[in-house]
Amino acid sequence: MNQLHHIVILGGGFGGLYAAQTLCNAAVRVTLIDRRNFHLFQPLLYQVATGGLSPGDISTPLRHILKRKKNVRVVMGEALDIDVANQRVILHDGEISYDSLLVATGVSHSYFGNEQWEKYAPGLKTVEDAVEMRRRILMAFETAERVQDCRERCPWLNFVVVGGGPTGVELAGALSELAKDTMKEDFRQINPAKAEIILIEGADRVLPSYPADLSLAAHHSLERLGVRILTNTMVTAVDADSVTIRSQDRETQISAKTVLWAAGIQASPLGNILSEKTGACLDHIGRIAVEPDLSLPGHPELLVIGDLALFQHGTEQPLPGVAPVAMQQGRYAADSILCRLRGETAPPFRYKNRGSMAVIGRAAAVADLKRFHLTGFLAWLAWLFIHLIHIVEFENRVLVTIQWAWNYFTKNRGARLITGISQPAGKDVYQ
Amino acid sequence: MNQLHHIVILGGGFGGLYAAQTLCNAAVRVTLIDRRNFHLFQPLLYQVATGGLSPGDISTPLRHILKRKKNVRVVMGEALDIDVANQRVILHDGEISYDSLLVATGVSHSYFGNEQWEKYAPGLKTVEDAVEMRRRILMAFETAERVQDCRERCPWLNFVVVGGGPTGVELAGALSELAKDTMKEDFRQINPAKAEIILIEGADRVLPSYPADLSLAAHHSLERLGVRILTNTMVTAVDADSVTIRSQDRETQISAKTVLWAAGIQASPLGNILSEKTGACLDHIGRIAVEPDLSLPGHPELLVIGDLALFQHGTEQPLPGVAPVAMQQGRYAADSILCRLRGETAPPFRYKNRGSMAVIGRAAAVADLKRFHLTGFLAWLAWLFIHLIHIVEFENRVLVTIQWAWNYFTKNRGARLITGISQPAGKDVYQ
Repeated sequence: MNQLHHIVILGGGFGGLYAAQTLCNAAVRVTLIDRRNFHLFQPLLYQVATGGLSPGDISTPLRHILKRKKNVRVVMGEALDIDVANQRVILHDGEISYDSLLVATGVSHSYFGNEQWEKYAPGLKTVEDAVEMRRRILMAFETAERVQDCRERCPWLNFVVVGGGPTGVELAGALSELAKDTMKEDFRQINPAKAEIILIEGADRVLPSYPADLSLAAHHSLERLGVRILTNTMVTAVDADSVTIRSQDRETQISAKTVLWAAGIQASPLGNILSEKTGACLDHIGRIAVEPDLSLPGHPELLVIGDLALFQHGTEQPLPGVAPVAMQQGRYAADSILCRLRGETAPPFRYKNRGSMAVIGRAAAVADLKRFHLTGFLAWLAWLFIHLIHIVEFENRVLVTIQWAWNYFTKNRGARLITGISQPAGKDVYQ
Repeated sequence: MNQLHHIVILGGGFGGLYAAQTLCNAAVRVTLIDRRNFHLFQPLLYQVATGGLSPGDISTPLRHILKRKKNVRVVMGEALDIDVANQRVILHDGEISYDSLLVATGVSHSYFGNEQWEKYAPGLKTVEDAVEMRRRILMAFETAERVQDCRERCPWLNFVVVGGGPTGVELAGALSELAKDTMKEDFRQINPAKAEIILIEGADRVLPSYPADLSLAAHHSLERLGVRILTNTMVTAVDADSVTIRSQDRETQISAKTVLWAAGIQASPLGNILSEKTGACLDHIGRIAVEPDLSLPGHPELLVIGDLALFQHGTEQPLPGVAPVAMQQGRYAADSILCRLRGETAPPFRYKNRGSMAVIGRAAAVADLKRFHLTGFLAWLAWLFIHLIHIVEFENRVLVTIQWAWNYFTKNRGARLITGISQPAGKDVYQ
């Protein structure tokens, strides 16, 4: 057994998981290493942040997914370094040798060098991020209900979402539905429907990576939900009480207690480590440039996939950091390692783009399916269908379907818990 | 509107919530104050601790439950003191006057004066407690899988549950099923079925408050699940690596990294405050003795219900701290206030005991239904049915039913997430 080729996979996201599943019937040993014990269905994380789903609904234990793949071992641990010369991964509490290494550690959010904004404007990459966002959103309404003075109350009902990409659009839409539908009758002093949701985007339209007609459709859908959209607008400062924005060289301050960050990303630090050791290039957000076969230059045993990989071959733009790219690269990388073991050379990786979509609200979405564009309810149904069939595990899929269907009919969001602090309505919040 | 009688309810558990719902059609103003924004279905908390359910599945926002009860206002806040003379509740950030006050703030767990044990042996009263228990249980298996040395591994696979009441029995049973069924195929180095689960009880049998034949049935069911039961045994010390127990004047040390506390309870500090101000008696765990109509002596406007109330009229034993007592007292207290407002006197409170039950595993439970005792699968079905119809909200009920049914058929537990720390496999855990 120990003479078998040993493939180590770092990261149990879409890329790493699909690679592990592709390798499960081959005569190789596989070790999948992740900091967490579960695979997270990240595209639905904004639903946790807005109380529509529980973390458990969109997470599945990695061990459970891989339990019947007897050649795959799951290790819960964090890779701190990669010893490229000796083919070893350095963990926080040990090391693991590899014959081939697949790095799929993804990206986290970034504040463009303004890391001090993080405490005022949490991002959305982990389950903890989502629960913290949910806590802040719900606490803002609770506090507004308690505050007597009208001027003091106003900033608690202003919500700023920074970034008009898919995450920002989805967050703003869900937040608007939470305030205007779900919680409509919940309060006695405030009218939550009067909450102001402001979406800030630096480019000249929301969803800038989508075709222009779909951006326009998303814009209209958001406006129908009451979201105020500021395009061509940059954030220049964030503190506990406000966001400062600049548009056309004029600075304005928006008074808001709740700021949600959906703007920048930065690659996992392993990109930097690999770049130093192999000479591969990094882009401005730390993604590492890979060869057409996803390996690093001069290191056929080292492959990088998913959001961490900068793949720019045969296309003007690098491939986007979305789940379908990671899944296809995971499968490809697994196959290409097996090819190499047989002494063959795999053809270069080619992304088969089946389209992309973003959801705006209960019955509104935009879908770029290449041959045709969908908007509105039809796009939403397509979105629902595609996301649900891709959720890794059957059990979660059933539950999520039911919860979704239920939300759709009742406008309810069942997971509106404020958790994680022993005294939620503490003085620090009311001030 | 402001001339209406103002009833303040402290605590949104079973007692407080049922009182609020009973008052919703009366010509009174009601304010329900809770530290949390949700009602928790505490009897299923052990399912969260063992990964079978998500916190969102057993929690419902209080505002949502009461949204159509327009005379009820929900305030998220913590009552620090009660100014009995001036009929005011002192919150951490303000005060609220009342005409009648219903105190239903319940109990938390206690360590019999050994509060230093808490960090080694978490209890199970809040959602955060349950998530922390789940984290410790799952991390113990993860760590055991990583540890190479056999002697070092052993304490990670020993789980001690302190307390053989319903919570301890349910925890031990669920933990055993998690290890022996759910995770059977999950690991490569360890066999989780070899985990040792030890249940410690000070009395001479588990479920000491139940009839002896049901204790015996529970004992056998637990043994079939592989749980080791130590009765007539006291815990004398707990630290990071072991539990020291005393039985028949002999002390023994059990080497175990995971200790779960299901033993003592102590009443909310408001009991003490009310006792000082009204002269009402407290028992050894801080429950406050109430009059036959649940009021405090000399204070018809002050009622105490649920786990915090010590009700001992017409029975040898005080009423137990279980959900049905709290619900019936909540309804009674609401009615008796309305009676008093009409100038009438309510008949004394009488508990209608419909029985009690505890669940041991997937298809095993014991039920004391007064006229007859049930054990095994039939008791389990009865348990499932009664718990499900009592979960407050329809949405949760559907989801919980489905998840339960699914778990039953697949032996799966979907919510096995290790959350709440950024680096789960940290050195502090592996040591």
